[in-house]
Amino acid sequence: MQIRYGVIGTGALGGFYGGMLARAGEEVHFLLRGDYEYVRENGLRIDSVTGDFRLPAVNAYADAGAMPKCDVILVCVKTTENSRLPDLLRPLLSPGSIVLLLQNGLGVEEDLAARLPQAEIAGGLAFICSQKNNPGHIRHLDYGKLDIGSYNVKNTTVLNRMIDDFRAAKVSAELSEDLNFARWRKLVWNVPFNGLTVVMNTTTDRLLAHDSTRGLVREIMLEVIHGANRCGVDLKESLAQKMINATLEMIPYAPSMKLDYDNRRPMEIEYIYSKPIETAARAGFDMSKVAMLENQLRFIGD
Amino acid sequence: MQIRYGVIGTGALGGFYGGMLARAGEEVHFLLRGDYEYVRENGLRIDSVTGDFRLPAVNAYADAGAMPKCDVILVCVKTTENSRLPDLLRPLLSPGSIVLLLQNGLGVEEDLAARLPQAEIAGGLAFICSQKNNPGHIRHLDYGKLDIGSYNVKNTTVLNRMIDDFRAAKVSAELSEDLNFARWRKLVWNVPFNGLTVVMNTTTDRLLAHDSTRGLVREIMLEVIHGANRCGVDLKESLAQKMINATLEMIPYAPSMKLDYDNRRPMEIEYIYSKPIETAARAGFDMSKVAMLENQLRFIGD
Repeated sequence: MQIRYGVIGTGALGGFYGGMLARAGEEVHFLLRGDYEYVRENGLRIDSVTGDFRLPAVNAYADAGAMPKCDVILVCVKTTENSRLPDLLRPLLSPGSIVLLLQNGLGVEEDLAARLPQAEIAGGLAFICSQKNNPGHIRHLDYGKLDIGSYNVKNTTVLNRMIDDFRAAKVSAELSEDLNFARWRKLVWNVPFNGLTVVMNTTTDRLLAHDSTRGLVREIMLEVIHGANRCGVDLKESLAQKMINATLEMIPYAPSMKLDYDNRRPMEIEYIYSKPIETAARAGFDMSKVAMLENQLRFIGD
Repeated sequence: MQIRYGVIGTGALGGFYGGMLARAGEEVHFLLRGDYEYVRENGLRIDSVTGDFRLPAVNAYADAGAMPKCDVILVCVKTTENSRLPDLLRPLLSPGSIVLLLQNGLGVEEDLAARLPQAEIAGGLAFICSQKNNPGHIRHLDYGKLDIGSYNVKNTTVLNRMIDDFRAAKVSAELSEDLNFARWRKLVWNVPFNGLTVVMNTTTDRLLAHDSTRGLVREIMLEVIHGANRCGVDLKESLAQKMINATLEMIPYAPSMKLDYDNRRPMEIEYIYSKPIETAARAGFDMSKVAMLENQLRFIGD
């Protein structure tokens, strides 16, 4: 059995992961917007730290309605587009199809499940530095690991097969036992660095080079960890320092929200800030500094 | 008995209040820095909403050592200059002299008393919109009330006489029973608006026009009120909404810290943020959002 893949959003993320699957011989169907004409003519170009390659001919679509039913649909648009997802996904779904939300934040699966009850949903976190600066041209700069977890998937055969396909395509993919844990864990990094690089108009390394903001990053991390704890997610306080140390060793780069802001795209405030704040609040925990950062971002984003 | 006044720092504040006293016939000695030559030649010009006037000849000094002993010394420099105060004040002090610190924040009297034990100290809060854009030229735009309170004044005769002098000079001056209360009360406004206009690079009216930042202003005000309460200062929660309403009715303007930042002058982070945070922390209260704002300001200010 070969799995048929759909990719919703062929950008830095979807172009890379879909492109890796296509290069390995998988059947992949790409939904595009602005790049559609260019990619239909020229295919995709992926410059990757693991080796550059081109896909001269890809299955490109401008309209989800023209796409075939798919077994796995990789959702690689920003969460700011999620209100469009039910309409984009419906034509691609058949019974047993899996929707894999490769998105940041908390609560994306829950919201989609409420609006598309027939979908089997998984979530994924991409640990990757990747950019799309020109049409159909993806630059994969570093990392690339996928942490994937089931939200309400019954069709485990396809889920496992997908993991195998990723690995065969040289994408490091892990099936996580606990998607909620994985999402909260990534928030510990995303919440301080995404928001503070935007509000302070700076980079991760400069935030960590100054005592006051390094302290603030740490306090916000601890607040997210304590929020997660209150929601029954067993993250340790020591994770904060580990993540700070790991960031100090990274090549300085702009988190995705900073890139969105600098390029005047909407920021993913809802799922990276508002949902975690609401979720912790329902469990009785006030993430006070995270809420302040959310307020500042909402002001900046409007 | 006529009181002899000294003014340390002849800017928007010192130029106005000292100028008002001089116009009313009081003996006033002004210490200047950059404007010294100009003011010695041309005097002071005060454009005030209460009536413009000029003081063609004033007692101007470039060096505190050349000034006479004074009965009352108005300290009108920014708190960022306070490390210089003992040296500037010593030549002007005689037994019974009162130093009136017309400065924002918390703890200025305490710090000066520790370094200048012989001084009798009072504190004052100026509720005024005033600017100095050109040498010797003060523009008084609105308000002007002084709230004055004793820190360790024994010489109440001079203190009361000073209040009378201000009033005779058409400055609305009140002697407050509780300087600590007055300082905390002003912090309820200063803490959110000074810091947030700098960090968000905006104005008071725009902060209040947006739901998220209006909410944040309110939460920070409540945090300061709760911090004050823990320190035994009886501020009511209702003060937050009252101050927001009053600010909505004000002409939009840039708080002093925003003007300092925009003009690349040091910001008064120490006495408006760090001291209140430390004071509340010693009383067992964590002003979490105020501390976050302090961290952001320290990053921006360096």
